[in-house]
Amino acid sequence: MAHIKVEEGVPGIRSLVLFRPETGKHLYELAQVLLRDASPLTAAERELIATHVSARNHCIFCMSSHAAAARELFEEKREVVDCVIESKGTALLSDKMKALLTIAGKVQQSGKLVTDEDIAEARKHGAEDRDIHDTVLIAATFSMFNRYVDGLASLTPTDPKEYEPMGKRLATLGYVLPQQQKTNGTH
Amino acid sequence: MAHIKVEEGVPGIRSLVLFRPETGKHLYELAQVLLRDASPLTAAERELIATHVSARNHCIFCMSSHAAAARELFEEKREVVDCVIESKGTALLSDKMKALLTIAGKVQQSGKLVTDEDIAEARKHGAEDRDIHDTVLIAATFSMFNRYVDGLASLTPTDPKEYEPMGKRLATLGYVLPQQQKTNGTH
Repeated sequence: MAHIKVEEGVPGIRSLVLFRPETGKHLYELAQVLLRDASPLTAAERELIATHVSARNHCIFCMSSHAAAARELFEEKREVVDCVIESKGTALLSDKMKALLTIAGKVQQSGKLVTDEDIAEARKHGAEDRDIHDTVLIAATFSMFNRYVDGLASLTPTDPKEYEPMGKRLATLGYVLPQQQKTNGTH
Repeated sequence: MAHIKVEEGVPGIRSLVLFRPETGKHLYELAQVLLRDASPLTAAERELIATHVSARNHCIFCMSSHAAAARELFEEKREVVDCVIESKGTALLSDKMKALLTIAGKVQQSGKLVTDEDIAEARKHGAEDRDIHDTVLIAATFSMFNRYVDGLASLTPTDPKEYEPMGKRLATLGYVLPQQQKTNGTH
């Protein structure tokens, strides 16, 4: 049970956003800009960074929902998502994504761990300032979301199938507040 | 030197917000709602939680700027800020704040560490759902800001005096985007 009184049956961050929509609005808008709006990284690659950080934080809700979104967005290359979650090897990743995931993994621990060499390695494989900026901010943002969701013990569905419609929704509609979805009849 | 090309001489998160104002807008708006708008916690108490988390993450920029803001807001009780930073004892804190800072310190490590007993202890001393929610979200949000600022190696002034005007600005104007301040002639 969650540590505070939230709407029953609503999973993860959605229950927290309904509890406090004034902060939820900015959290969702940040996610939409960061994960969907213009970036040199594809939406699929950005969801992969979110999944990687959430997996390292053992945040089952965030990992499962963003992995589901990443699978939808990667389409036929969806197996890359499980490779990243299970650390099963990086053969399917570009050298640029390998370098950016290394940076994201360091940010997940502490921003101070990112070295000039990590940045140089990413640049060697084509990363520019915006790739590096977006990678660091996505990793930092999921360090927040993971703590928010688990720190209040929000509902985490245990059946992997429950995350599939979330993934489809995130891949098609993006980050839409629960209230807006109700209004739009798309919940 | 920062890992990406940001405006020279602009410290901390302000340089990153100028680099990418589209995400910066939501980061500042989130901070304003969370740290200044209506809450059962005073602005001073909320800045203290931000300072505590930033100190534990060794993020000198965030710790120093929010400590400066907390000192301004606590006024004659400002010594509580250094007690929290230096873990010099909690005699100056209310039992409710002690319990909330314990929760914030756990969230700084991992949201999963917060126990039912931690929540019960806070409730015993008068914390209600909104106190607990805001504490967890502030701790999570600073886990993000700290990683963003340090993960991109943004400029961190080393002279403590440089943080005093930042503290005054945060205590009076709140979280105003650098661009808006320029427009308003208040930078």
